[in-house]
Amino acid sequence: MPVKVFGSPASAEVARVLTCLFEKDVEFQLIRVDSFRGPKRMPQYLKLQPHGEALTFEDGNVTLVESRKILRHIADKYKHQGYKDLFGPGALERASIEQWLQTEAHSFAIPSADMVYSLAYLPPDLPLDGRGAAGLPPAAAGMHPSHRQKMEEMLQLFERSRKDLGKLLDIYEQRLGEEEFLAGGKFTLADLSHLPNADRLAADPRSARLIESRRNVSRWWYTISARDSWKRVKELQRPPSAEAPF
Amino acid sequence: MPVKVFGSPASAEVARVLTCLFEKDVEFQLIRVDSFRGPKRMPQYLKLQPHGEALTFEDGNVTLVESRKILRHIADKYKHQGYKDLFGPGALERASIEQWLQTEAHSFAIPSADMVYSLAYLPPDLPLDGRGAAGLPPAAAGMHPSHRQKMEEMLQLFERSRKDLGKLLDIYEQRLGEEEFLAGGKFTLADLSHLPNADRLAADPRSARLIESRRNVSRWWYTISARDSWKRVKELQRPPSAEAPF
Repeated sequence: MPVKVFGSPASAEVARVLTCLFEKDVEFQLIRVDSFRGPKRMPQYLKLQPHGEALTFEDGNVTLVESRKILRHIADKYKHQGYKDLFGPGALERASIEQWLQTEAHSFAIPSADMVYSLAYLPPDLPLDGRGAAGLPPAAAGMHPSHRQKMEEMLQLFERSRKDLGKLLDIYEQRLGEEEFLAGGKFTLADLSHLPNADRLAADPRSARLIESRRNVSRWWYTISARDSWKRVKELQRPPSAEAPF
Repeated sequence: MPVKVFGSPASAEVARVLTCLFEKDVEFQLIRVDSFRGPKRMPQYLKLQPHGEALTFEDGNVTLVESRKILRHIADKYKHQGYKDLFGPGALERASIEQWLQTEAHSFAIPSADMVYSLAYLPPDLPLDGRGAAGLPPAAAGMHPSHRQKMEEMLQLFERSRKDLGKLLDIYEQRLGEEEFLAGGKFTLADLSHLPNADRLAADPRSARLIESRRNVSRWWYTISARDSWKRVKELQRPPSAEAPF
Protein backbone atom coordinates (compact mmCIF):
# COMPACT_ATOMS: atom_id res chain seq x y z
CA MET A 1 0.00 0.00 0.00
CA PRO A 2 1.51 3.31 -1.01
CA VAL A 3 1.59 6.28 1.34
CA LYS A 4 -1.57 8.41 1.13
CA VAL A 5 -1.80 12.17 1.53
CA PHE A 6 -5.26 13.73 1.84
CA GLY A 7 -5.35 17.47 1.25
CA SER A 8 -4.73 20.29 -1.18
CA PRO A 9 -1.17 21.05 -2.35
CA ALA A 10 -2.06 24.74 -1.99
CA SER A 11 -2.00 24.24 1.80
CA ALA A 12 1.37 24.97 3.43
CA GLU A 13 1.01 21.89 5.65
CA VAL A 14 0.39 19.61 2.67
CA ALA A 15 3.08 21.27 0.53
CA ARG A 16 5.66 20.64 3.28
CA VAL A 17 4.85 16.94 3.33
CA LEU A 18 4.79 16.57 -0.47
CA THR A 19 8.22 18.21 -0.73
CA CYS A 20 9.59 15.70 1.75
CA LEU A 21 8.06 12.75 -0.12
CA PHE A 22 9.62 13.93 -3.38
CA GLU A 23 13.00 14.40 -1.67
CA LYS A 24 12.84 10.84 -0.33
CA ASP A 25 11.57 9.32 -3.57
CA VAL A 26 8.61 7.76 -1.76
CA GLU A 27 5.73 6.35 -3.78
CA PHE A 28 2.49 8.01 -2.72
CA GLN A 29 -1.04 8.94 -3.66
CA LEU A 30 -2.38 12.44 -3.32
CA ILE A 31 -6.13 12.56 -2.71
CA ARG A 32 -7.65 15.93 -3.43
CA VAL A 33 -11.20 17.18 -3.01
CA ASP A 34 -12.39 20.17 -5.05
CA SER A 35 -15.86 21.64 -4.59
CA PHE A 36 -17.84 23.08 -7.47
CA ARG A 37 -21.09 24.90 -7.76
CA GLY A 38 -22.82 26.51 -10.68
CA PRO A 39 -21.26 28.99 -13.05
CA LYS A 40 -18.30 29.91 -10.83
CA ARG A 41 -16.00 27.36 -9.32
CA MET A 42 -15.61 27.78 -5.58
CA PRO A 43 -12.06 28.93 -4.99
CA GLN A 44 -11.74 26.47 -2.12
CA TYR A 45 -8.32 25.20 -3.06
CA LEU A 46 -6.97 28.74 -3.14
CA LYS A 47 -8.53 29.91 0.11
CA LEU A 48 -6.15 31.36 2.62
CA GLN A 49 -6.24 29.07 5.62
CA PRO A 50 -3.45 30.49 7.74
CA HIS A 51 -4.04 28.51 10.94
CA GLY A 52 -5.83 25.35 10.08
CA GLU A 53 -5.16 23.53 6.86
CA ALA A 54 -6.59 20.06 6.53
CA LEU A 55 -4.01 17.31 6.14
CA THR A 56 -4.08 13.61 6.79
CA PHE A 57 -1.16 11.29 6.17
CA GLU A 58 -1.40 7.50 6.10
CA ASP A 59 1.51 5.10 5.91
CA GLY A 60 0.42 1.53 6.64
CA ASN A 61 -0.93 1.62 10.19
CA VAL A 62 0.45 5.08 10.91
CA THR A 63 -1.91 8.05 10.63
CA LEU A 64 -0.55 11.55 11.28
CA VAL A 65 -1.97 15.04 10.86
CA GLU A 66 0.84 17.38 11.92
CA SER A 67 3.16 18.21 9.04
CA ARG A 68 6.43 18.39 10.97
CA LYS A 69 5.74 15.06 12.68
CA ILE A 70 5.13 13.66 9.23
CA LEU A 71 8.47 15.06 8.00
CA ARG A 72 10.25 13.26 10.87
CA HIS A 73 8.40 10.04 10.13
CA ILE A 74 9.30 10.13 6.42
CA ALA A 75 12.95 11.07 7.00
CA ASP A 76 13.30 8.22 9.56
CA LYS A 77 11.36 5.45 7.85
CA TYR A 78 12.77 6.11 4.37
CA LYS A 79 16.29 7.03 5.46
CA HIS A 80 17.92 4.69 2.93
CA GLN A 81 16.26 6.13 -0.17
CA GLY A 82 16.17 9.42 -2.06
CA TYR A 83 18.07 12.40 -0.68
CA LYS A 84 19.83 11.04 2.43
CA ASP A 85 20.76 14.12 4.47
CA LEU A 86 17.32 15.40 5.48
CA PHE A 87 18.17 14.55 9.10
CA GLY A 88 21.82 15.49 8.63
CA PRO A 89 24.77 13.11 8.52
CA GLY A 90 24.92 12.67 12.32
CA ALA A 91 23.42 13.16 15.80
CA LEU A 92 24.83 16.66 16.21
CA GLU A 93 23.06 17.89 13.09
CA ARG A 94 19.88 16.14 14.17
CA ALA A 95 19.76 18.19 17.40
CA SER A 96 20.28 21.37 15.42
CA ILE A 97 17.62 20.36 12.90
CA GLU A 98 15.13 19.77 15.72
CA GLN A 99 15.87 23.20 17.11
CA TRP A 100 15.28 24.88 13.73
CA LEU A 101 12.11 22.88 13.16
CA GLN A 102 10.81 24.30 16.45
CA THR A 103 11.84 27.80 15.43
CA GLU A 104 10.14 27.42 12.07
CA ALA A 105 6.92 26.11 13.65
CA HIS A 106 6.72 28.63 16.50
CA SER A 107 8.39 31.79 15.22
CA PHE A 108 8.37 31.70 11.41
CA ALA A 109 5.18 29.96 10.21
CA ILE A 110 2.67 32.02 12.20
CA PRO A 111 3.89 35.56 11.42
CA SER A 112 4.45 34.53 7.78
CA ALA A 113 0.89 33.28 7.45
CA ASP A 114 -0.36 36.40 9.27
CA MET A 115 1.51 38.65 6.88
CA VAL A 116 0.23 36.86 3.78
CA TYR A 117 -3.28 36.93 5.20
CA SER A 118 -3.12 40.67 5.92
CA LEU A 119 -1.71 41.41 2.45
CA ALA A 120 -4.64 39.64 0.81
CA TYR A 121 -6.86 42.37 2.30
CA LEU A 122 -4.65 45.41 1.79
CA PRO A 123 -4.78 47.16 -1.61
CA PRO A 124 -1.53 46.59 -3.52
CA ASP A 125 -0.99 50.34 -3.97
CA LEU A 126 -1.28 51.18 -0.26
CA PRO A 127 2.18 52.30 0.88
CA LEU A 128 3.15 50.09 3.81
CA ASP A 129 6.81 50.62 4.52
CA GLY A 130 7.30 52.28 7.84
CA ARG A 131 3.65 53.31 8.10
CA GLY A 132 3.43 51.60 11.44
CA ALA A 133 0.81 53.42 13.47
CA ALA A 134 0.22 55.92 10.67
CA GLY A 135 -2.83 53.85 9.75
CA LEU A 136 -4.98 54.28 6.68
CA PRO A 137 -4.54 56.99 4.06
CA PRO A 138 -7.03 59.91 3.97
CA ALA A 139 -8.93 58.24 1.11
CA ALA A 140 -10.06 55.58 3.60
CA ALA A 141 -12.29 58.14 5.28
CA GLY A 142 -14.97 57.38 2.68
CA MET A 143 -15.00 53.64 3.42
CA HIS A 144 -17.82 51.76 5.05
CA PRO A 145 -17.01 51.64 8.80
CA SER A 146 -16.83 47.83 8.98
CA HIS A 147 -14.54 47.73 5.97
CA ARG A 148 -12.42 50.49 7.45
CA GLN A 149 -12.15 48.62 10.73
CA LYS A 150 -11.09 45.41 8.94
CA MET A 151 -8.44 47.35 7.03
CA GLU A 152 -7.10 48.91 10.24
CA GLU A 153 -6.91 45.44 11.78
CA MET A 154 -5.08 44.10 8.76
CA LEU A 155 -2.64 47.01 8.80
CA GLN A 156 -1.86 46.24 12.44
CA LEU A 157 -1.48 42.54 11.69
CA PHE A 158 0.86 43.35 8.81
CA GLU A 159 2.94 45.66 10.95
CA ARG A 160 3.18 43.22 13.86
CA SER A 161 4.17 40.29 11.63
CA ARG A 162 6.67 42.47 9.76
CA LYS A 163 8.42 43.37 13.05
CA ASP A 164 8.41 39.78 14.34
CA LEU A 165 9.70 38.34 11.07
CA GLY A 166 12.29 41.09 10.74
CA LYS A 167 13.80 40.25 14.14
CA LEU A 168 13.72 36.53 13.39
CA LEU A 169 15.27 36.89 9.94
CA ASP A 170 18.11 38.97 11.41
CA ILE A 171 19.05 35.82 13.37
CA TYR A 172 18.73 33.74 10.21
CA GLU A 173 20.91 36.23 8.35
CA GLN A 174 23.66 35.79 10.92
CA ARG A 175 23.35 32.00 10.98
CA LEU A 176 23.37 31.78 7.19
CA GLY A 177 26.54 33.89 7.16
CA GLU A 178 28.26 31.09 9.11
CA GLU A 179 26.74 28.07 7.36
CA GLU A 180 25.22 27.46 3.95
CA PHE A 181 22.03 25.99 5.44
CA LEU A 182 20.25 26.44 8.76
CA ALA A 183 21.54 23.25 10.40
CA GLY A 184 24.97 23.23 8.74
CA GLY A 185 26.49 22.48 5.36
CA LYS A 186 23.61 20.39 3.99
CA PHE A 187 20.00 20.98 3.02
CA THR A 188 17.90 19.34 5.76
CA LEU A 189 14.37 19.24 7.16
CA ALA A 190 15.21 22.52 8.89
CA ASP A 191 15.33 24.28 5.52
CA LEU A 192 12.63 22.19 3.84
CA SER A 193 10.09 23.06 6.49
CA HIS A 194 10.39 26.77 5.62
CA LEU A 195 9.62 26.37 1.92
CA PRO A 196 5.82 26.81 1.80
CA ASN A 197 5.60 29.95 3.92
CA ALA A 198 8.81 31.49 2.59
CA ASP A 199 7.41 30.98 -0.90
CA ARG A 200 4.25 32.88 0.05
CA LEU A 201 6.35 35.74 1.38
CA ALA A 202 8.45 35.76 -1.78
CA ALA A 203 5.34 35.90 -3.99
CA ASP A 204 4.35 39.45 -2.98
CA PRO A 205 6.82 42.33 -3.36
CA ARG A 206 5.51 43.83 -0.10
CA SER A 207 6.66 40.80 1.89
CA ALA A 208 9.48 39.63 -0.39
CA ARG A 209 11.53 42.59 0.87
CA LEU A 210 12.02 40.72 4.14
CA ILE A 211 14.01 38.13 2.22
CA GLU A 212 15.54 40.30 -0.49
CA SER A 213 16.93 42.88 1.91
CA ARG A 214 19.05 40.19 3.62
CA ARG A 215 21.99 38.93 1.60
CA ASN A 216 22.45 35.52 3.21
CA VAL A 217 18.74 34.84 3.59
CA SER A 218 18.32 35.68 -0.12
CA ARG A 219 21.09 33.33 -1.15
CA TRP A 220 19.60 30.57 1.03
CA TRP A 221 16.10 31.12 -0.35
CA TYR A 222 17.41 31.09 -3.91
CA THR A 223 19.16 27.74 -3.24
CA ILE A 224 16.37 25.91 -1.40
CA SER A 225 13.57 27.11 -3.67
CA ALA A 226 15.47 25.74 -6.67
CA ARG A 227 15.25 22.13 -5.44
CA ASP A 228 13.40 19.81 -7.81
CA SER A 229 11.14 18.60 -5.01
CA TRP A 230 9.87 22.12 -4.38
CA LYS A 231 9.48 22.91 -8.07
CA ARG A 232 7.26 19.85 -8.41
CA VAL A 233 5.12 20.96 -5.49
CA LYS A 234 4.78 24.43 -7.04
CA GLU A 235 3.51 22.82 -10.24
CA LEU A 236 0.91 20.92 -8.24
CA GLN A 237 -0.18 24.17 -6.61
CA ARG A 238 -1.06 25.78 -9.91
CA PRO A 239 -4.80 26.00 -10.24
CA PRO A 240 -6.26 23.94 -13.07
CA SER A 241 -7.69 27.08 -14.60
CA ALA A 242 -6.12 30.37 -15.57
CA GLU A 243 -9.28 32.21 -14.57
CA ALA A 244 -9.13 34.67 -11.69
CA PRO A 245 -9.78 32.91 -8.38
CA PHE A 246 -12.11 35.57 -6.95
CA MET B 1 -24.52 16.19 1.15
CA PRO B 2 -23.29 17.35 -2.23
CA VAL B 3 -22.95 14.97 -5.15
CA LYS B 4 -19.55 13.24 -5.21
CA VAL B 5 -17.58 12.25 -8.31
CA PHE B 6 -14.54 10.01 -7.85
CA GLY B 7 -12.20 9.94 -10.83
CA SER B 8 -9.90 11.92 -13.07
CA PRO B 9 -11.34 14.61 -15.35
CA ALA B 10 -8.93 13.32 -18.03
CA SER B 11 -11.14 10.22 -18.31
CA ALA B 12 -13.85 10.45 -20.98
CA GLU B 13 -16.35 8.82 -18.61
CA VAL B 14 -15.66 11.34 -15.86
CA ALA B 15 -15.56 14.31 -18.28
CA ARG B 16 -19.01 13.37 -19.61
CA VAL B 17 -20.46 13.44 -16.08
CA LEU B 18 -18.72 16.69 -15.08
CA THR B 19 -20.06 18.43 -18.20
CA CYS B 20 -23.58 17.38 -17.26
CA LEU B 21 -23.16 18.60 -13.65
CA PHE B 22 -21.98 21.99 -14.90
CA GLU B 23 -24.89 22.19 -17.36
CA LYS B 24 -27.34 21.48 -14.54
CA ASP B 25 -25.68 23.79 -12.04
CA VAL B 26 -25.38 20.96 -9.51
CA GLU B 27 -23.16 21.42 -6.46
CA PHE B 28 -20.62 18.62 -6.32
CA GLN B 29 -17.24 17.50 -5.07
CA LEU B 30 -14.63 16.03 -7.36
CA ILE B 31 -12.33 13.57 -5.60
CA ARG B 32 -9.15 12.90 -7.52
CA VAL B 33 -6.36 10.49 -6.79
CA ASP B 34 -2.96 11.12 -8.37
CA SER B 35 -0.09 8.69 -7.94
CA PHE B 36 3.50 9.83 -7.67
CA ARG B 37 6.80 8.10 -7.51
CA GLY B 38 10.33 9.36 -7.49
CA PRO B 39 11.82 11.86 -9.87
CA LYS B 40 9.15 11.50 -12.58
CA ARG B 41 5.50 11.82 -11.85
CA MET B 42 3.52 8.83 -13.07
CA PRO B 43 1.40 10.09 -15.93
CA GLN B 44 -1.56 8.16 -14.54
CA TYR B 45 -4.04 10.95 -15.05
CA LEU B 46 -3.04 11.21 -18.69
CA LYS B 47 -2.94 7.50 -19.42
CA LEU B 48 -5.03 6.39 -22.33
CA GLN B 49 -7.67 4.11 -20.88
CA PRO B 50 -9.87 3.53 -23.88
CA HIS B 51 -12.09 0.80 -22.46
CA GLY B 52 -12.11 1.11 -18.73
CA GLU B 53 -11.92 4.42 -16.99
CA ALA B 54 -12.60 4.45 -13.28
CA LEU B 55 -15.63 6.49 -12.26
CA THR B 56 -17.88 6.42 -9.24
CA PHE B 57 -20.80 8.76 -8.73
CA GLU B 58 -22.63 9.22 -5.43
CA ASP B 59 -25.80 11.23 -4.92
CA GLY B 60 -27.34 10.56 -1.52
CA ASN B 61 -28.13 6.83 -1.51
CA VAL B 62 -27.59 6.44 -5.24
CA THR B 63 -24.23 5.08 -6.43
CA LEU B 64 -23.62 4.72 -10.16
CA VAL B 65 -20.59 3.86 -12.26
CA GLU B 66 -21.78 4.05 -15.88
CA SER B 67 -21.47 7.56 -17.27
CA ARG B 68 -24.58 7.57 -19.48
CA LYS B 69 -26.73 6.22 -16.65
CA ILE B 70 -25.35 9.05 -14.55
CA LEU B 71 -26.28 11.59 -17.24
CA ARG B 72 -29.88 10.32 -17.18
CA HIS B 73 -29.95 10.45 -13.38
CA ILE B 74 -28.68 14.04 -13.29
CA ALA B 75 -30.96 15.28 -16.09
CA ASP B 76 -33.98 13.68 -14.34
CA LYS B 77 -33.29 14.53 -10.73
CA TYR B 78 -32.17 18.11 -11.40
CA LYS B 79 -34.61 18.85 -14.22
CA HIS B 80 -35.72 22.16 -12.67
CA GLN B 81 -32.29 23.75 -12.46
CA GLY B 82 -29.52 24.83 -14.82
CA TYR B 83 -29.92 24.20 -18.55
CA LYS B 84 -33.40 22.65 -18.87
CA ASP B 85 -33.41 20.97 -22.27
CA LEU B 86 -30.89 18.17 -21.73
CA PHE B 87 -33.72 15.66 -22.09
CA GLY B 88 -35.48 17.78 -24.70
CA PRO B 89 -38.73 19.69 -24.27
CA GLY B 90 -40.94 16.59 -24.64
CA ALA B 91 -41.36 12.80 -24.86
CA LEU B 92 -40.68 12.68 -28.58
CA GLU B 93 -37.27 14.25 -28.15
CA ARG B 94 -36.53 11.97 -25.23
CA ALA B 95 -36.96 8.89 -27.43
CA SER B 96 -34.65 10.39 -30.01
CA ILE B 97 -32.12 11.32 -27.32
CA GLU B 98 -32.12 7.74 -26.01
CA GLN B 99 -31.47 6.46 -29.53
CA TRP B 100 -28.52 8.79 -30.01
CA LEU B 101 -27.12 7.95 -26.58
CA GLN B 102 -27.11 4.30 -27.67
CA THR B 103 -25.43 5.19 -30.96
CA GLU B 104 -22.81 7.23 -29.15
CA ALA B 105 -22.09 4.43 -26.66
CA HIS B 106 -22.02 1.57 -29.14
CA SER B 107 -20.84 3.06 -32.43
CA PHE B 108 -18.99 6.29 -31.68
CA ALA B 109 -17.13 5.93 -28.34
CA ILE B 110 -15.30 2.68 -29.10
CA PRO B 111 -13.87 3.47 -32.57
CA SER B 112 -12.99 6.99 -31.37
CA ALA B 113 -11.06 5.63 -28.40
CA ASP B 114 -9.43 3.01 -30.66
CA MET B 115 -8.34 5.69 -33.11
CA VAL B 116 -6.87 7.92 -30.39
CA TYR B 117 -5.14 4.90 -28.87
CA SER B 118 -3.60 3.87 -32.20
CA LEU B 119 -2.45 7.42 -32.94
CA ALA B 120 -0.58 7.57 -29.63
CA TYR B 121 1.65 4.79 -31.02
CA LEU B 122 2.02 5.92 -34.62
CA PRO B 123 4.74 8.48 -35.43
CA PRO B 124 3.16 11.85 -36.31
CA ASP B 125 5.01 11.98 -39.65
CA LEU B 126 3.83 8.56 -40.84
CA PRO B 127 1.50 9.21 -43.81
CA LEU B 128 -1.81 7.54 -42.99
CA ASP B 129 -4.36 8.71 -45.50
CA GLY B 130 -5.45 5.92 -47.73
CA ARG B 131 -2.57 3.66 -46.72
CA GLY B 132 -5.02 0.97 -45.81
CA ALA B 133 -3.27 -2.33 -46.26
CA ALA B 134 -0.09 -0.65 -47.49
CA GLY B 135 1.32 -1.14 -44.00
CA LEU B 136 4.52 0.33 -42.71
CA PRO B 137 6.97 2.39 -44.77
CA PRO B 138 10.27 0.80 -45.92
CA ALA B 139 12.11 2.50 -43.05
CA ALA B 140 10.24 0.20 -40.67
CA ALA B 141 12.30 -2.73 -41.92
CA GLY B 142 15.01 -1.75 -39.44
CA MET B 143 12.67 -1.88 -36.45
CA HIS B 144 12.79 -4.44 -33.67
CA PRO B 145 10.30 -7.20 -34.65
CA SER B 146 8.09 -6.72 -31.57
CA HIS B 147 7.96 -2.97 -32.16
CA ARG B 148 7.21 -3.53 -35.84
CA GLN B 149 4.42 -5.93 -34.98
CA LYS B 150 2.87 -3.43 -32.54
CA MET B 151 3.04 -0.71 -35.20
CA GLU B 152 1.37 -2.98 -37.77
CA GLU B 153 -1.37 -3.72 -35.25
CA MET B 154 -1.84 -0.03 -34.54
CA LEU B 155 -2.00 0.77 -38.25
CA GLN B 156 -4.74 -1.80 -38.66
CA LEU B 157 -6.60 -0.47 -35.63
CA PHE B 158 -6.34 3.05 -37.04
CA GLU B 159 -7.60 1.98 -40.43
CA ARG B 160 -10.51 -0.03 -39.01
CA SER B 161 -11.64 2.77 -36.69
CA ARG B 162 -11.27 5.33 -39.50
CA LYS B 163 -13.61 3.31 -41.73
CA ASP B 164 -16.17 2.71 -38.97
CA LEU B 165 -16.18 6.32 -37.88
CA GLY B 166 -16.31 7.54 -41.45
CA LYS B 167 -19.49 5.55 -42.12
CA LEU B 168 -21.06 6.67 -38.85
CA LEU B 169 -20.22 10.32 -39.37
CA ASP B 170 -21.77 10.24 -42.83
CA ILE B 171 -25.06 9.48 -41.06
CA TYR B 172 -24.38 12.31 -38.58
CA GLU B 173 -23.63 14.64 -41.47
CA GLN B 174 -27.02 13.93 -43.02
CA ARG B 175 -28.87 14.23 -39.69
CA LEU B 176 -27.10 17.50 -38.85
CA GLY B 177 -28.11 18.84 -42.27
CA GLU B 178 -31.76 18.44 -41.17
CA GLU B 179 -31.47 19.58 -37.54
CA GLU B 180 -29.07 21.79 -35.65
CA PHE B 181 -28.40 19.12 -33.01
CA LEU B 182 -28.61 15.34 -33.05
CA ALA B 183 -31.99 15.05 -31.34
CA GLY B 184 -33.53 18.21 -32.84
CA GLY B 185 -33.30 21.94 -32.42
CA LYS B 186 -31.77 21.94 -28.92
CA PHE B 187 -28.50 20.84 -27.35
CA THR B 188 -29.31 17.68 -25.37
CA LEU B 189 -27.63 14.71 -23.68
CA ALA B 190 -27.32 13.20 -27.17
CA ASP B 191 -24.79 15.88 -28.09
CA LEU B 192 -23.22 16.23 -24.64
CA SER B 193 -22.32 12.57 -24.50
CA HIS B 194 -20.13 12.93 -27.60
CA LEU B 195 -17.98 15.74 -26.21
CA PRO B 196 -15.09 13.84 -24.57
CA ASN B 197 -14.31 11.49 -27.44
CA ALA B 198 -15.01 14.04 -30.18
CA ASP B 199 -12.59 16.36 -28.41
CA ARG B 200 -9.89 13.68 -28.52
CA LEU B 201 -10.46 13.22 -32.22
CA ALA B 202 -10.31 16.98 -32.78
CA ALA B 203 -7.02 17.24 -30.89
CA ASP B 204 -4.94 15.37 -33.51
CA PRO B 205 -4.93 16.57 -37.13
CA ARG B 206 -4.83 12.92 -38.27
CA SER B 207 -8.23 12.23 -36.69
CA ALA B 208 -9.64 15.77 -36.80
CA ARG B 209 -10.12 15.36 -40.57
CA LEU B 210 -13.04 13.06 -39.83
CA ILE B 211 -14.83 16.07 -38.37
CA GLU B 212 -13.39 18.85 -40.50
CA SER B 213 -14.16 17.16 -43.80
CA ARG B 214 -17.88 17.14 -42.96
CA ARG B 215 -19.55 20.54 -43.09
CA ASN B 216 -22.50 19.88 -40.78
CA VAL B 217 -20.51 17.78 -38.33
CA SER B 218 -17.92 20.60 -38.15
CA ARG B 219 -20.56 23.21 -37.47
CA TRP B 220 -22.11 20.99 -34.77
CA TRP B 221 -18.72 20.30 -33.16
CA TYR B 222 -17.89 24.00 -33.17
CA THR B 223 -21.19 24.79 -31.43
CA ILE B 224 -21.19 22.06 -28.78
CA SER B 225 -17.49 22.39 -27.90
CA ALA B 226 -18.03 26.11 -27.22
CA ARG B 227 -20.42 25.44 -24.32
CA ASP B 228 -19.23 26.85 -20.99
CA SER B 229 -19.72 23.50 -19.29
CA TRP B 230 -17.29 21.81 -21.66
CA LYS B 231 -14.76 24.65 -21.48
CA ARG B 232 -14.69 24.23 -17.70
CA VAL B 233 -14.09 20.50 -18.02
CA LYS B 234 -11.26 21.16 -20.47
CA GLU B 235 -9.65 23.45 -17.89
CA LEU B 236 -9.87 20.69 -15.30
CA GLN B 237 -8.22 18.29 -17.73
CA ARG B 238 -5.12 20.43 -18.05
CA PRO B 239 -2.26 18.72 -16.24
CA PRO B 240 -0.90 20.65 -13.26
CA SER B 241 2.49 20.70 -14.94
CA ALA B 242 3.61 21.88 -18.35
CA GLU B 243 6.20 19.09 -18.49
CA ALA B 244 5.86 16.40 -21.12
CA PRO B 245 3.69 13.55 -19.83
CA PHE B 246 5.86 10.72 -21.14
